[in-house]
Amino acid sequence: MQLTAHDDISDYLIAPDPGRAGLTRAVEGFDHTGAPVITNVVEERPLTIFLNAQEIVTAMTIGDYPDYLALGFLRNQGMLRDSDEITGVDYDEELETVIVRTARKTDYEDKMRKKTRTSGCAVGTVFGDMMEGLEGVRLPATPVRTSWLYALSSKINRTPSLYLEAGAIHGTVLCQGDRPLVYMEDVGRHNAVDKIAGWMLRSGTGPEDKILYTTGRLTSEMVIKTAMMGIPVLASRSGFTAWGVEIAQQVGLTLIGRMRGQRFVCLAGEDRLLRDADPASVAEEPRRAGRKGAV
Amino acid sequence: MQLTAHDDISDYLIAPDPGRAGLTRAVEGFDHTGAPVITNVVEERPLTIFLNAQEIVTAMTIGDYPDYLALGFLRNQGMLRDSDEITGVDYDEELETVIVRTARKTDYEDKMRKKTRTSGCAVGTVFGDMMEGLEGVRLPATPVRTSWLYALSSKINRTPSLYLEAGAIHGTVLCQGDRPLVYMEDVGRHNAVDKIAGWMLRSGTGPEDKILYTTGRLTSEMVIKTAMMGIPVLASRSGFTAWGVEIAQQVGLTLIGRMRGQRFVCLAGEDRLLRDADPASVAEEPRRAGRKGAV
Repeated sequence: MQLTAHDDISDYLIAPDPGRAGLTRAVEGFDHTGAPVITNVVEERPLTIFLNAQEIVTAMTIGDYPDYLALGFLRNQGMLRDSDEITGVDYDEELETVIVRTARKTDYEDKMRKKTRTSGCAVGTVFGDMMEGLEGVRLPATPVRTSWLYALSSKINRTPSLYLEAGAIHGTVLCQGDRPLVYMEDVGRHNAVDKIAGWMLRSGTGPEDKILYTTGRLTSEMVIKTAMMGIPVLASRSGFTAWGVEIAQQVGLTLIGRMRGQRFVCLAGEDRLLRDADPASVAEEPRRAGRKGAV
Repeated sequence: MQLTAHDDISDYLIAPDPGRAGLTRAVEGFDHTGAPVITNVVEERPLTIFLNAQEIVTAMTIGDYPDYLALGFLRNQGMLRDSDEITGVDYDEELETVIVRTARKTDYEDKMRKKTRTSGCAVGTVFGDMMEGLEGVRLPATPVRTSWLYALSSKINRTPSLYLEAGAIHGTVLCQGDRPLVYMEDVGRHNAVDKIAGWMLRSGTGPEDKILYTTGRLTSEMVIKTAMMGIPVLASRSGFTAWGVEIAQQVGLTLIGRMRGQRFVCLAGEDRLLRDADPASVAEEPRRAGRKGAV
């Protein structure tokens, strides 16, 4: 993480590092007038995740946190439990593989035979399992202040990121109060969430007082992942799907979408919301905020 | 399809039908001031696709064209061949299943054991197979005029759609010259593309002189699908990934991104481009064009 004098960056435990080598590539092309241009585009490479001896999935990723991605993916699929003793996480950059090793013997052959393509598509997510896994979920009644949401939105929108620089990418940020903690990006929205889950597992950070903020849509899958991670609040600039709303209402998650400037809509878990900020005091969002990778 | 007096809609063979029952749902919630609001959100429901007796995948979809989705998905996975005799497509609305029946006996047990989670995530896309499948691809040298691209962009941006109405959705449009033909939307970008592939299969429409326009990012998977469908040009408002560009260059696909108003960037297949329009004559994009589902 690069520290700058800017307050917003110093909040972060992990901030985006758009300048880091290997995340983008300069590509030659031509613009609308036929003039040669150089464009920064996001790198996307395969990472094959193993759990002990078993190959689980190949994920396309920008490749910045292979260890967190593997841990978080496996945890969010229910293949890794919070109680598991992790004996190793072996990343091989050349082979583009990462092996997560546990003391417990594992075998998910059956689980991998079923597939669901969801709106965001997590390979290996078993449809029936997804809904079953939610049955035991109880999310804490932690209040969330609108002043925090406005502060987070503002800080996150101003954080230099691949999203702002090169487009074609999704960001998800783990927050606490009005402080963004861990900002992960990736070509796939679910990778970003899984990397956060992996970081939380590794660092032993609890979910009960956290807020998950995402640039992506609040689909059923995003809602399910957030609930399974034990985080009680999910917020986004983008819109909702009906099923996402339904599930959020069922599990008692606070679901906030269409966050632009002072405006937002809450379609579930309204009771956690403490409207302590005067919306009129929040600046209208400048037109250019969040504009992706302008040439 | 609803016909209106508007020229842009009359171009379409299939246009979006945002008013159609069942595609969106009105949900009660609260806004930033605490006032009750009603918000239109996109429906998302599971559809289980069978090929003959074999269950292949469950896809989350808005549910408007289950038959095209099933046909297109199977074709784009290489499980259905253009030469296959399709003896039936049986959609059961209650069971939320669709069975595609062929004269040929099929068994894709092996293919389904491998998984790839790509940046957009097509369950069941076998990574090695994806790259192999591209080896035989030869895309025709059909020229594409910039005047067409500008006209398409303009018409598509003005077409009433779920994208504009309720957000949280991706659109992909099959075009020919300056005419948009088939506009499919869905919660998942790859569903929209698969529905187009299914329609092309059913209608016997060839790809050689077509353009595929999408609201989504030009990831490796989008490029691969477009190439596998035999369409030589892929265009988007959004950005690129490096691998998507590489693959496009390898297979000789014309790849155009960041299309806003008069501007765009071409990072592959420049030779097909005929710059016949004066960019200065193209209106700057109004700020509100393409703004999703504003409350």
